[in-house]
Amino acid sequence: MHTTSPLAALRQWLDAHHLDGMIVPRADAWQSEYCAPYDEKLAWLTGFDGSAGLALVLKDKALLFVDGRYQVQARVQVNMDEIAIHHLHNEPLAEWLAKNVEAGTRIGFEALLMTNADFMQLSATPCELVPLDRSPFDTIWSDRPAPPAGLIREMPVEISGESSTDKRRRVAAVLAEKNADVLAVTLPDNIAWLLNVRGSDIPTSPVPLSFALLKRDGSVEWFVNDSKLVELPDAVRNAFTLAPQEAFIARCKALSQGKRVLVDADSAPVALRFAIEPQGEIVWQTDPITLMKANKNSVELAGYRECHHQDGAAWVNFLAWLSREVPLREAAGNPLMELEVQAKQLAFREQQPGFIEPSFETISASSSNAAMCHYHSSEASNKPIGHDHFYLNDSGGQYHNGTTDATRTLAWGKVDAQQRLHYTAVLRGFLSLITLQFPSGTQGHQLDAFARRPLWEMGLDYDHGTGHGVGHQLLIHENPHRIAKKVNPWPLVAGNIMTIEPGYYLGDSHGIRIENQVEIVESRPGFCTFASLTLIPIDLSQVELHLLNEQEKQWLDAYHQQVREALSPRVNSDARQWLEEATAPICV
Amino acid sequence: MHTTSPLAALRQWLDAHHLDGMIVPRADAWQSEYCAPYDEKLAWLTGFDGSAGLALVLKDKALLFVDGRYQVQARVQVNMDEIAIHHLHNEPLAEWLAKNVEAGTRIGFEALLMTNADFMQLSATPCELVPLDRSPFDTIWSDRPAPPAGLIREMPVEISGESSTDKRRRVAAVLAEKNADVLAVTLPDNIAWLLNVRGSDIPTSPVPLSFALLKRDGSVEWFVNDSKLVELPDAVRNAFTLAPQEAFIARCKALSQGKRVLVDADSAPVALRFAIEPQGEIVWQTDPITLMKANKNSVELAGYRECHHQDGAAWVNFLAWLSREVPLREAAGNPLMELEVQAKQLAFREQQPGFIEPSFETISASSSNAAMCHYHSSEASNKPIGHDHFYLNDSGGQYHNGTTDATRTLAWGKVDAQQRLHYTAVLRGFLSLITLQFPSGTQGHQLDAFARRPLWEMGLDYDHGTGHGVGHQLLIHENPHRIAKKVNPWPLVAGNIMTIEPGYYLGDSHGIRIENQVEIVESRPGFCTFASLTLIPIDLSQVELHLLNEQEKQWLDAYHQQVREALSPRVNSDARQWLEEATAPICV
Repeated sequence: MHTTSPLAALRQWLDAHHLDGMIVPRADAWQSEYCAPYDEKLAWLTGFDGSAGLALVLKDKALLFVDGRYQVQARVQVNMDEIAIHHLHNEPLAEWLAKNVEAGTRIGFEALLMTNADFMQLSATPCELVPLDRSPFDTIWSDRPAPPAGLIREMPVEISGESSTDKRRRVAAVLAEKNADVLAVTLPDNIAWLLNVRGSDIPTSPVPLSFALLKRDGSVEWFVNDSKLVELPDAVRNAFTLAPQEAFIARCKALSQGKRVLVDADSAPVALRFAIEPQGEIVWQTDPITLMKANKNSVELAGYRECHHQDGAAWVNFLAWLSREVPLREAAGNPLMELEVQAKQLAFREQQPGFIEPSFETISASSSNAAMCHYHSSEASNKPIGHDHFYLNDSGGQYHNGTTDATRTLAWGKVDAQQRLHYTAVLRGFLSLITLQFPSGTQGHQLDAFARRPLWEMGLDYDHGTGHGVGHQLLIHENPHRIAKKVNPWPLVAGNIMTIEPGYYLGDSHGIRIENQVEIVESRPGFCTFASLTLIPIDLSQVELHLLNEQEKQWLDAYHQQVREALSPRVNSDARQWLEEATAPICV
Repeated sequence: MHTTSPLAALRQWLDAHHLDGMIVPRADAWQSEYCAPYDEKLAWLTGFDGSAGLALVLKDKALLFVDGRYQVQARVQVNMDEIAIHHLHNEPLAEWLAKNVEAGTRIGFEALLMTNADFMQLSATPCELVPLDRSPFDTIWSDRPAPPAGLIREMPVEISGESSTDKRRRVAAVLAEKNADVLAVTLPDNIAWLLNVRGSDIPTSPVPLSFALLKRDGSVEWFVNDSKLVELPDAVRNAFTLAPQEAFIARCKALSQGKRVLVDADSAPVALRFAIEPQGEIVWQTDPITLMKANKNSVELAGYRECHHQDGAAWVNFLAWLSREVPLREAAGNPLMELEVQAKQLAFREQQPGFIEPSFETISASSSNAAMCHYHSSEASNKPIGHDHFYLNDSGGQYHNGTTDATRTLAWGKVDAQQRLHYTAVLRGFLSLITLQFPSGTQGHQLDAFARRPLWEMGLDYDHGTGHGVGHQLLIHENPHRIAKKVNPWPLVAGNIMTIEPGYYLGDSHGIRIENQVEIVESRPGFCTFASLTLIPIDLSQVELHLLNEQEKQWLDAYHQQVREALSPRVNSDARQWLEEATAPICV
């Protein structure tokens, strides 16, 4: 039997459809950070399964564009005889097309998988971009996984704190203010918030993959496949006009005659533009739900605080177990391994009431594995955990009333002097930012450097952001707020939920990160501070305490007292003594 | 004899020219921060002499738009029966026109006084904007001051560090890179840098008001009035094609046929657009000279360092004199006054070799006068300087080899406890920023908060930037770098000259600011620190020393040692003892 390679199959299809090539991004219609297997077209086509990238397939060549993180991985995963690897940012696709493709070359693309901004960049090239009516992958991908069909559940108003009716009324008021008729809601987490539902299409991301249209009267048309709704109460279903997901674009076309449609400028597919612009007007701006959702209400905030007590108890049970087992197992010549530890941690979380699933794929990284910020352990990479190096754990849970995310870096013996200095610098940066009082409305990029200064003093830095928003039983990386070097225009105000997570990574040696999730609270009129939601002892065994100032030490003691008092009644009895010791004060 | 008011005269002129109104901004053709009296049209027309604002004169009404700083001053200076005062930012002119003016209303404006961005905003209104061939002020302003005609001098290559030929070659290379044919240089400080000349049209701003065109071969046409050139050596004059300033716009028109002309997007007059666009193409971007000029060469840097020794000696002579005279004069019932002190300081500066003139109008502000950040003393406002309050002095000099800018806040007795805490917080903010090591290329908005944190801790802040660039015997506020809350995209690198100047102001009570001028230096590969150019003791008599950490105290002692060693040989003999005491170490 003759088998055709994915590339050859695609080329056949293109040929039959009179196309010279096609752009295949690693994207679904929602520009999701985590995609369903059904949408992993790029991985099926090229073998590359990283979280960002795109392929250009031409008759005689194929190119894969990936960013700096993935240059090595792509070269391992891809057949380099068939596919050339390029740099996504240093030599972007638009530039390559401008230089290498003749005018009029017909390049197909799926308009649901490309944002308007991406499309605008490519439009400047000489080739003819051809939006496809149907996806070639519907026919050529024979063993394709089924489309995501995760059940959708209600998010009760007792947990969300505001009825969908009230939310829709608030958003509709924004439409009126902007003189717009319709909001096209293309972000699944915004749909989840607006309709007070949660989905299960993708593990760890409880969003319902679907689309919605909100009109000025607050009514909603929800484009979602019916099979996902079977467990949703009738009262919820009946609050909306339902239609299949596939009907969304056609409906946008039909409904936009003479209308002003508000569309998310950052993420909405360019398919919306093609559908609306011939007869309606698009108002490009950030979906107003994105900001409303980021300003948590008091019920949501209470939920976050409560689930962090559960998650904290799971962490303490886990850390107490680790502190017993690491030396024993190492002494017995059978050390604990990353994957075993990760599984044990999940078991501790599963003991907690309200726990649903992890909120992202756990990073359980021993010694040099932790130097890779986005490492995930596998049988091949699995390393032992011993006494003379750091172990980094970055994990969190989806609970019925909130989402958690925290990182601790620990050692049970003694790391070398340089690593102690690195750990101390990361801790000082963490403390500097978390103890800050700042004017309400300050932006993330104004605060980022506080977390870096102790590393900068040593001529060091870390190559990731310092903090991100966290959804309320929603996405682990929630827009729009960030604390990072990059400019982020969104003002930080009371009610925002962020992480604070400086780190330091030395390739092939070690990685350190300390992360608390925090709530922004008003500390006095016009000023805010960070209040820790995370309740987990911070390992001080590797700290050069003399490098901390009094304010920093006092914060640590106060934090540890808070952790001890909050968790002591909740942890397993065999973890209580460990909690006492791990939270002992350092100030005399 | 019948005298016509300026407003009436303008209305007559408009009527004769079939116009319904006119926009009169506080601006010259270079959008200068400080204007020549000849260009103070708005002040002559309305009485308002603030540094920013604009008037709209219609047949039946006149409006003055000024920002928040000037709401009070405008109401004092303007005849409110004739002119209504509006807020420049809260209700901008474009918005007012859109709401209040009928379509087709003919509004005149001088295209040399308006930037392209301003024009674009006004273009969106229903009125017809009419660029005027001639200025009405040429005829109606009878007692108008003469046009600025300051002599232009050579800036020797021994002081500028790079020949004009070499500079022009470097800029021409950028033109080639951008595929542009001509650079229209409309910023006088960029002309001064490019041609290695300095002007004297406006006190404290040694720039030659003029225009220039640089072509790809490095040749320059300089549009400057001949009378300014009489003292310029022939060799310098002959290096350029000369033409009268007034010929600039017509030449742009003639020369731009089929050409790409690079024009400064931030400041160039819209007159250039009208002249070039019909037959040429404008490339709007920041004038490349702006960035080149900000990266000082080693000769310029040596000049800055040297002139700060002179300026520091003048400051120490002045401060030693103050410390003797303030108590004596107060005890004698004849206290020193702001204006007298300001004059004495100038006399000390004038004793220094290489001193040319002040680099900006001195701020000599006692007690509550200092609460106004931009205060200038007058006979009416002149306050005594006594023992129980702060005196703030912000001043600098133009020297033949550089420009200085520094602020000290001092007290000779004891201020109250709250003011001591404020002074200590400002000093801590100053120390926090000035002791920072940061990655080369970090941007100003990433660092600004270090200077504010100690005030933020107390729920306080200051409403101005933290630092600005300083020209090399050029403008006191030099673009493009800033350290401020506002985003500034220009990377800070070794060779930039900045100020660091946090402050605190309590209305009707007191004002505090501490400012050093600094050079950015590479401290290790990839990292930079600030090296102080300013050599002036910092008053520690009002500091709560226990609130400073060890690093901050050590910096102060090291700085004071540097000041003492650098200046002791240079100050007057009767100032030497004061210098010893003012720089005594605080660490034991």
